[in-house]
Amino acid sequence: MCGVVGVYCYDESVTSKIAYYTLFSLQHRGQESAGMATFHKNMVHLHKGMGLLGEVFSSEILDKLHGNTAIGHVRYSTTGESKIENAQPLLVKSKAGLIAVSHNGNLVNYWELRRKLEEDGRVFLTDSDTEIIAQLLSNYLLKYDIIESLCKLGETLVGSYTLTMLINNKIVGFRDPIGFKPLCVGEADFGYVIASESCAIDAIGAEFIRDVRPGEAVVIEDGEIEFFKVLNSTKKAICVFEYIYFARPDSVIDGKSVYEARHNMGRILAKESHVEADIVSSIPDSGITASIGYSHESGIPYIEALIKNRYVGRTFIMPEQKLREFSVKLKVNAVKKNIEGKRVILVDDSIVRGTTSRKIVEMVRKAGAKEVHFRVGSPPIIAPCYFGIDMSTREELLASSRSVEEIKRLLNADTLAYLSLNGLLKAVGFSKRELCLACLTSLYPVEVADEKCIDQLS
Amino acid sequence: MCGVVGVYCYDESVTSKIAYYTLFSLQHRGQESAGMATFHKNMVHLHKGMGLLGEVFSSEILDKLHGNTAIGHVRYSTTGESKIENAQPLLVKSKAGLIAVSHNGNLVNYWELRRKLEEDGRVFLTDSDTEIIAQLLSNYLLKYDIIESLCKLGETLVGSYTLTMLINNKIVGFRDPIGFKPLCVGEADFGYVIASESCAIDAIGAEFIRDVRPGEAVVIEDGEIEFFKVLNSTKKAICVFEYIYFARPDSVIDGKSVYEARHNMGRILAKESHVEADIVSSIPDSGITASIGYSHESGIPYIEALIKNRYVGRTFIMPEQKLREFSVKLKVNAVKKNIEGKRVILVDDSIVRGTTSRKIVEMVRKAGAKEVHFRVGSPPIIAPCYFGIDMSTREELLASSRSVEEIKRLLNADTLAYLSLNGLLKAVGFSKRELCLACLTSLYPVEVADEKCIDQLS
Amino acid sequence: MCGVVGVYCYDESVTSKIAYYTLFSLQHRGQESAGMATFHKNMVHLHKGMGLLGEVFSSEILDKLHGNTAIGHVRYSTTGESKIENAQPLLVKSKAGLIAVSHNGNLVNYWELRRKLEEDGRVFLTDSDTEIIAQLLSNYLLKYDIIESLCKLGETLVGSYTLTMLINNKIVGFRDPIGFKPLCVGEADFGYVIASESCAIDAIGAEFIRDVRPGEAVVIEDGEIEFFKVLNSTKKAICVFEYIYFARPDSVIDGKSVYEARHNMGRILAKESHVEADIVSSIPDSGITASIGYSHESGIPYIEALIKNRYVGRTFIMPEQKLREFSVKLKVNAVKKNIEGKRVILVDDSIVRGTTSRKIVEMVRKAGAKEVHFRVGSPPIIAPCYFGIDMSTREELLASSRSVEEIKRLLNADTLAYLSLNGLLKAVGFSKRELCLACLTSLYPVEVADEKCIDQLS
Amino acid sequence: MCGVVGVYCYDESVTSKIAYYTLFSLQHRGQESAGMATFHKNMVHLHKGMGLLGEVFSSEILDKLHGNTAIGHVRYSTTGESKIENAQPLLVKSKAGLIAVSHNGNLVNYWELRRKLEEDGRVFLTDSDTEIIAQLLSNYLLKYDIIESLCKLGETLVGSYTLTMLINNKIVGFRDPIGFKPLCVGEADFGYVIASESCAIDAIGAEFIRDVRPGEAVVIEDGEIEFFKVLNSTKKAICVFEYIYFARPDSVIDGKSVYEARHNMGRILAKESHVEADIVSSIPDSGITASIGYSHESGIPYIEALIKNRYVGRTFIMPEQKLREFSVKLKVNAVKKNIEGKRVILVDDSIVRGTTSRKIVEMVRKAGAKEVHFRVGSPPIIAPCYFGIDMSTREELLASSRSVEEIKRLLNADTLAYLSLNGLLKAVGFSKRELCLACLTSLYPVEVADEKCIDQLS
Repeated sequence: MCGVVGVYCYDESVTSKIAYYTLFSLQHRGQESAGMATFHKNMVHLHKGMGLLGEVFSSEILDKLHGNTAIGHVRYSTTGESKIENAQPLLVKSKAGLIAVSHNGNLVNYWELRRKLEEDGRVFLTDSDTEIIAQLLSNYLLKYDIIESLCKLGETLVGSYTLTMLINNKIVGFRDPIGFKPLCVGEADFGYVIASESCAIDAIGAEFIRDVRPGEAVVIEDGEIEFFKVLNSTKKAICVFEYIYFARPDSVIDGKSVYEARHNMGRILAKESHVEADIVSSIPDSGITASIGYSHESGIPYIEALIKNRYVGRTFIMPEQKLREFSVKLKVNAVKKNIEGKRVILVDDSIVRGTTSRKIVEMVRKAGAKEVHFRVGSPPIIAPCYFGIDMSTREELLASSRSVEEIKRLLNADTLAYLSLNGLLKAVGFSKRELCLACLTSLYPVEVADEKCIDQLS
Repeated sequence: MCGVVGVYCYDESVTSKIAYYTLFSLQHRGQESAGMATFHKNMVHLHKGMGLLGEVFSSEILDKLHGNTAIGHVRYSTTGESKIENAQPLLVKSKAGLIAVSHNGNLVNYWELRRKLEEDGRVFLTDSDTEIIAQLLSNYLLKYDIIESLCKLGETLVGSYTLTMLINNKIVGFRDPIGFKPLCVGEADFGYVIASESCAIDAIGAEFIRDVRPGEAVVIEDGEIEFFKVLNSTKKAICVFEYIYFARPDSVIDGKSVYEARHNMGRILAKESHVEADIVSSIPDSGITASIGYSHESGIPYIEALIKNRYVGRTFIMPEQKLREFSVKLKVNAVKKNIEGKRVILVDDSIVRGTTSRKIVEMVRKAGAKEVHFRVGSPPIIAPCYFGIDMSTREELLASSRSVEEIKRLLNADTLAYLSLNGLLKAVGFSKRELCLACLTSLYPVEVADEKCIDQLS
Repeated sequence: MCGVVGVYCYDESVTSKIAYYTLFSLQHRGQESAGMATFHKNMVHLHKGMGLLGEVFSSEILDKLHGNTAIGHVRYSTTGESKIENAQPLLVKSKAGLIAVSHNGNLVNYWELRRKLEEDGRVFLTDSDTEIIAQLLSNYLLKYDIIESLCKLGETLVGSYTLTMLINNKIVGFRDPIGFKPLCVGEADFGYVIASESCAIDAIGAEFIRDVRPGEAVVIEDGEIEFFKVLNSTKKAICVFEYIYFARPDSVIDGKSVYEARHNMGRILAKESHVEADIVSSIPDSGITASIGYSHESGIPYIEALIKNRYVGRTFIMPEQKLREFSVKLKVNAVKKNIEGKRVILVDDSIVRGTTSRKIVEMVRKAGAKEVHFRVGSPPIIAPCYFGIDMSTREELLASSRSVEEIKRLLNADTLAYLSLNGLLKAVGFSKRELCLACLTSLYPVEVADEKCIDQLS
Repeated sequence: MCGVVGVYCYDESVTSKIAYYTLFSLQHRGQESAGMATFHKNMVHLHKGMGLLGEVFSSEILDKLHGNTAIGHVRYSTTGESKIENAQPLLVKSKAGLIAVSHNGNLVNYWELRRKLEEDGRVFLTDSDTEIIAQLLSNYLLKYDIIESLCKLGETLVGSYTLTMLINNKIVGFRDPIGFKPLCVGEADFGYVIASESCAIDAIGAEFIRDVRPGEAVVIEDGEIEFFKVLNSTKKAICVFEYIYFARPDSVIDGKSVYEARHNMGRILAKESHVEADIVSSIPDSGITASIGYSHESGIPYIEALIKNRYVGRTFIMPEQKLREFSVKLKVNAVKKNIEGKRVILVDDSIVRGTTSRKIVEMVRKAGAKEVHFRVGSPPIIAPCYFGIDMSTREELLASSRSVEEIKRLLNADTLAYLSLNGLLKAVGFSKRELCLACLTSLYPVEVADEKCIDQLS
């Protein structure tokens, strides 16, 4: 998962700063690396580095990134290996000019495309699917205009790709035809901004215009913005995990408030799996909104049973083997006063591996809970994601091979309930044909080797 | 404000790590600098640096800090100038041996003591009151034993001082006679730990033994722990701001749960200043617990109207003048869906300068609130703190020269109410003679030049 | 100018270290960036960074660079812009496999080749001529074996290129057909080493085998080394500046000792332009060897009139305008005792811009010299270098538009003499047809736009 | 060994820069740490750090060091442990005001003084003898004026101490009564400078005024400079190692050119121990000047047999055990052409441990030398230095327990000769009673426990 932005400013002296602040509101979408490219007088200025935005950029560096147009990227490592070579934007040069690409998503047919291009004698400097996109686009642009080239691109790429690009002096935002990853556009006194989430548009005081629709492109040139319908698709596949966990709750994605969706998940969960209890609490921070919804629906008071250490982060020295037992306690602590002698409902947004969940149930029991009821704001995750979320094998997924009853015993909870798939759809307000639910259903919206495709069924 | 720890481990290979993790749970008490001193074979190993713990320490550094005993410190800058010279622990050498001092607090008679010592020909390498403490203690130890020396120290120092110290091979914890700043002791399989707050004892899996009482010392030597009543006082002056804002909500200080105290503040506030509204929300993160209490008492549902960017921190590049208006938006964003058309109660723990509060009211109005009612979980702050909290002049305090009505207009709130002093006392569960309420009453528990002392009244 | 190496070790645990120490002896050939690539189990491990070797590499990094084969690079910035994107080795991936390239030299037909490849739809990630070499080679390897591919490469590239490469598991060294830049091979107990200069072979205790000849390739595979005559040329164009200035004096290049060549330059200069004087001294460090030669021939005693500050380097804070006059004094100081009342001969290896020379003459005069005679161990530099040495425009070259008499007056020397071209040839021991003398003659060994080519004359 | 400076500038905007450049010319006197203190409006600005000047200071930092007066320090570690706590200047505050001290030297009676002060109840923050000096001086200044206080200081301290100090708004330079370490004064348009060596005065374009004499103080206040005879002594003990090795050859110390002294050492050595040979060469860089002197006297031509890698420095990764044999080769390489078949005289300035010398003889033999004659520009070092040079125990000194014949065999030289003590005295031009020759004679100029004092003899 990653965050992408594109910015156009009338006053070139603020462009890189606006892009920086826009990215800053997307920092939750990626902390591994950050980068920015600006276009100025037929040159692209590019800066990228490992770490958080504040570590990669300084005022001096932003001052050197001249130009009215900028794109940016924050990267979340899905592949394990964390290196500067993978940082984006990726800049390529060709007869088509200078093209810089920020990519959120994952191509399913990467190796197939790469092998085809290698057969044609193509040479690659990275192992990133972004280079494939950049090379293909550069080639299409030799024959076609931008919109036709994006159309060609859409016919070639399989997988998820939400892009912000500098194509010479233009900023181009583009979303794959089924719209896995979000993208939206805002307008302000100072210019335009394209960003993964609407919270980034709010943060810089811009007005939300609208989402870039699946298969749609947005082009900004010389202060003029235009939307183009590039690709058609009979279905959508908006990543449901954006609503469940990934996006910021203050964002509105494809017309749906993330906060409201999560709050609904909690409400519906309360209806589906009511249990008598004294308090509702959340696994902080991911379960907070759903647990408030649960409380509102059930009437059981919401109170914090667990407090998270706000300083848990990347530079923390992990306990060595001898002190490993601390690892969860250092991150989360129980508020005894709120737990002692109580029947506690713990709400989390989802369970992926389940290791932390088990330790937290134990911590809450130790703090004196009479009963611990675990509630999950989404259905069991049973299948891997091939589109950019870090759940890559069935082996690592707790629910891929276990019943709810087995998981309950493993977590040592008194009861355990997941939200139903229908409950989730109701909470989010989309139909099955509008969402990517692959991790919950094992049915994939595009063809993936050795997996069932949703289209085979219909 | 600062955090202090002292650790004794039977196995010397884990001491520095335990101290590190103990400090990590106190990181909220100071982010400017961090340090640790261990005693081993008649030598003190000392490491300190600027920044967060994870920036100052590495596994390699911790491995070099040998010994069964360690003290540590995290520092919060109260004086503005941030430099390595001020980092603690402070290590001094004298005929009394090696003494390392971690200090939380502020001496009111620093310059008086310093001038007196200078008259005697004393020389200082720092401008820190910790050096005064270390010099005086070193001298007392030439004539007296540790407990007598602490007694002498208590007779000399005026102000707040909670100390953890290495006095050669011993660990000594000490709290001033009126107990401004907290200190408590825990025990585990691996040894003992002394820390500013109980959350740090929880985090390393230790059992809470008890608070160090005002005027009391705790000495750990060769794995034996002993408490000593050193100083007597007819009153206490526990800093009420620890309960209002500073301490972590999962800590229990002097027998009182911080979470419960804050929750009570919200409850009582709701009783004292009820208003019809649709939702209760908080200024994140400081007002969360009080706002939940407010909701519980009033029956008005608690929901998040504002979302905080979790990555706001020290390395962030602050907007320059041209983009200054962003500064609050970058930190906090409104959830429109929760606000639009609603009567909103916003709860914060306290108001110091009020600049952010005003911008947030504006943000909530822009998001469509019909009414905005501001509620504060503590009485107006009208007087400076001389004991270590960063509120140093009356000028900077919004309420020092304004009525509640004036402040309401300034914040542009529909209504504004503060918790009453009696309400606060009830919430915390202490009497006036047990708390330092100086910032709320302008009556000081010890003599401070040009201020009224509480003892003058009684 | 750059330094390149290739290393094969039987014991894979020492390869990266041997490569590091080999590069270390070539540090004088480039201080801007450094890098290394190793091949291990079908993967290339690559590390590069800005700065000196000791800044770019650590023991931990070297330990991670596994494999029996390694190539390395140190880069000297010729183009002004100093950035990580330009650091080498450059790694490319294609149907031909993994190819990593370290390049010393400069392609004259870079833009022509790039445009041609762009016309074919090729895409580039850098503006470096090394990427052109890597792309072309990757393509040739699809049709031809390594030697044929190098032959094709030689037919396409115009300019200077001495390469060390990883072509999958093989190490390949290659030198352009007229041999601008040096390359030689050594053998040791631990394996083989290819390096720009023989001093690097000495430094790791290896035995010098022989130079790689112009147009020749050397291939090391599985511990077997083989030389291949790839390209034929009727002429050579060994860069004479390697002997004059660039190479380390303890190197032997193409059979000629650099020390001996420089010593000869001084000797012949003394014969050609004798002058009565009391001492011979050098501009340190570049003129030392020639000045010793001058002394030996003339019988005038050699003594140091100037001492260089050994700490002048990259991290030095340059004086601002107000203190600019210091800049030379900070680097070099006069030894008054050796100068006062003396007739001084100052020998330098060459004069490029002349700004420092003028200040040094002034410094020597101020120190009390009766006469200052300036002697230069090479002919006047009158034309730019297009092959990798940092003398890019005629404007910056002092001698391009001035007579010796004019330069003498500008330097304020009592006499000035340059070595003659014939003197230089005698000193180096090569004929005109074996050296690149373009900067001294303005006749270029290959075709360069708007310049005269030596072949047009013959 | 260390370097100290004091600077007064009329224009306060250049003071810190002038001090920086002055220190830069003394970088050879210490590379471990660097620091500077300036006095401005009753405050001292202090900055210090580990590493070279260019690593410790930046333009931004220099800009913040306001004031007309500055002192500076570069530190050479003599004690092994390298830490920031030892960096200087040391700043102390007392009734006497602000005193910052830069110290070159070593107190012999440090622990005696420290114990005495500790008995008086004094407390220390460092283990540095500089703190003793600062504490004592602060105390004397309460009763006496500056000159009297320095007099008292001189009566108390035993050992070597050359100091530059800020005593509030004054700059004070002071040299111990027997003048172990050098100090001199220069004047320029911009103000005054006090520095360890005259090369630093030259480097900033100032005029040398004169040396600060042993026992003398120099005080600069408000742009007025004054010298004071503070302490009398019947003898001097100027460190002879400054002339042999430590000082820069372009400095003039106590009226004697260092270059001339070294050149004389070579000349006299040639007379004392002539040998038939083909070339004279030096161990670079330390033996260069003496070897030129040797050549001039003997008529045997001077030529470089060995070339030093200019990049050997602190960040270099030392070879691990497996590759340890490289360590000398990486630093120094033989020029075969100059050695092959020749009888070689190798001149070094001194032999301390002898490990490198042995490897270099071996390297020269391997390069084909027919004979290797080792010549040393100073007598054998047989006794430790207690005054600040890094030769602390007899065990580490090659000559402390071996005859010249034994050392010759150990080095595997054909002949070996040291300069005689008389030869050294003649070369330097001082009498025995003017120099500290303790390391060569084992007779110490001040009383040192368990060592013979020169005064006991006379």
